[in-house]
Amino acid sequence: MSTPPHFADALAAAIDAKGAPACVGLDPVLDRLPAPILATHHDPVQAIHEFCKGVIEAVADIVPVIKPQSASFERYGEMGVSVLRNVIRFAHSRGLIVLLDAKRGDIGVTAEHYAHATIGPLTGPSLHTADAVTLSGYMGPDTIEPFLDHPGRGVFVLVRTSNPGSDAVQAQRLADGRSVAEMVADMVRALGAARVGSRGLSSVGAVVGATKSADAAALRSRMPATIFLIPGYGAQGGTLEDIRPCLRPGARSAGEQGILVNASRSVLYPAGGGGDDWTWPIRESATRLVNELGTL
Amino acid sequence: MSTPPHFADALAAAIDAKGAPACVGLDPVLDRLPAPILATHHDPVQAIHEFCKGVIEAVADIVPVIKPQSASFERYGEMGVSVLRNVIRFAHSRGLIVLLDAKRGDIGVTAEHYAHATIGPLTGPSLHTADAVTLSGYMGPDTIEPFLDHPGRGVFVLVRTSNPGSDAVQAQRLADGRSVAEMVADMVRALGAARVGSRGLSSVGAVVGATKSADAAALRSRMPATIFLIPGYGAQGGTLEDIRPCLRPGARSAGEQGILVNASRSVLYPAGGGGDDWTWPIRESATRLVNELGTL
Repeated sequence: MSTPPHFADALAAAIDAKGAPACVGLDPVLDRLPAPILATHHDPVQAIHEFCKGVIEAVADIVPVIKPQSASFERYGEMGVSVLRNVIRFAHSRGLIVLLDAKRGDIGVTAEHYAHATIGPLTGPSLHTADAVTLSGYMGPDTIEPFLDHPGRGVFVLVRTSNPGSDAVQAQRLADGRSVAEMVADMVRALGAARVGSRGLSSVGAVVGATKSADAAALRSRMPATIFLIPGYGAQGGTLEDIRPCLRPGARSAGEQGILVNASRSVLYPAGGGGDDWTWPIRESATRLVNELGTL
Repeated sequence: MSTPPHFADALAAAIDAKGAPACVGLDPVLDRLPAPILATHHDPVQAIHEFCKGVIEAVADIVPVIKPQSASFERYGEMGVSVLRNVIRFAHSRGLIVLLDAKRGDIGVTAEHYAHATIGPLTGPSLHTADAVTLSGYMGPDTIEPFLDHPGRGVFVLVRTSNPGSDAVQAQRLADGRSVAEMVADMVRALGAARVGSRGLSSVGAVVGATKSADAAALRSRMPATIFLIPGYGAQGGTLEDIRPCLRPGARSAGEQGILVNASRSVLYPAGGGGDDWTWPIRESATRLVNELGTL
């Protein structure tokens, strides 16, 4: 087997090819699926599968990355996990980079199991896994390290999340002056330092919510080579101005800006969507996302 | 449907019935399975299934709780998740309380999905879920709350874990004098305060590693009504003396001590085990665990 390309290099190239650091989050929720799908698929898992395939077809030539939310599939037990596998395979067949949003975090052999389950290789024939996965670092660096042994794969560690309750933990101030989020940021930088590719970006990324822009500049200066996965854009209230402090200074292209901006609901469930030709409004909203991010 | 019993009450009753707060961790690792199983099951997932069933049969009348490690099953994709479901169902049929070690942590509708996936109800027929689940609180209290709407179920939130790297995050000192672990402990206490049952224990528990006994007394005084799930006993080096500071003062029975001590490798893979009569040494090691914990 040949060595796979460095994850951060591959991501930067894919972003440059599409012109913007855009990620579409695949968070299917049954009662929000388009009417034509609900009318023809009475099995919820099959309905979700059809929806995800339609979304992927609609956005594959527009955005570089899709981010399936593992929980949306796990909710349906083994059938859901099987569909997740098929969705990842289908996205790869359409040339997309797949980032699995799983937020796993455990130690030792358990972390190794999770690494195999999310970024592979799984044991068994044709069991597809993702190119990167989101992780929680609360248990320390030894929960991240087992994921870093998988060549060509990447991770995004929770640093500063976009939900209202995140301040209760992440904004707490340490005796040394850092916030808890900044302390985790320093851990992420240290873990990623030896994994920087030819574009100056590390395969160890960070999750930094768009709604926490007041903290973004400090986090960027602590993590100069880190790709920020930025949720919270659009439906959750984050704006382009909120994203600006996350940008790496001196980037020569979109792929070197060091960001990946996720939109889920605003792309999946656009206003006026859900009708007979339901993929078209999704395609339009993905195009709008790319155009907006292209102005950064 | 009748209201299910309060989780912490049911756990205390089960501990009292068995005489000790013992939990057997089901962390099956293929290359450590008994020779007779590996010889007769060439499919790794079936081998793991047989092993788990044998362990459950061997310990069901000895210990009150088993704790399957979700990652050990997820590693095998949808087939593994299907076996996990069967293992949970089988353990319930043998009268065991099932605590799923999944360490999930996410927000809003995603947390609701994870709650359904781990403690139910899943969508679909006969899809069994666990009585309680481990969670990460790094994203704040809104990641825990959706799990608390499930009657009769419990959660255990990561507070102070037993792995060597945990100090890098959890032992950091805040400006107000608390450690990060103590700050999360205060969050756990607040979340659990309205969920205390008739035995004085809350259905919102905490994970506190046996190897962190220096911190245990302070954590106990911050979380007087919290059940501590204590990993790290036995194979990871934790001793009875390490567990003592975790005990609630004034407990009238084992069920009111406010602890649940997990042993995985020392029970599953006992010295001299793995032969033709492989369930017997597992039964003996579970009995030893219960006898040891019964002296607390």
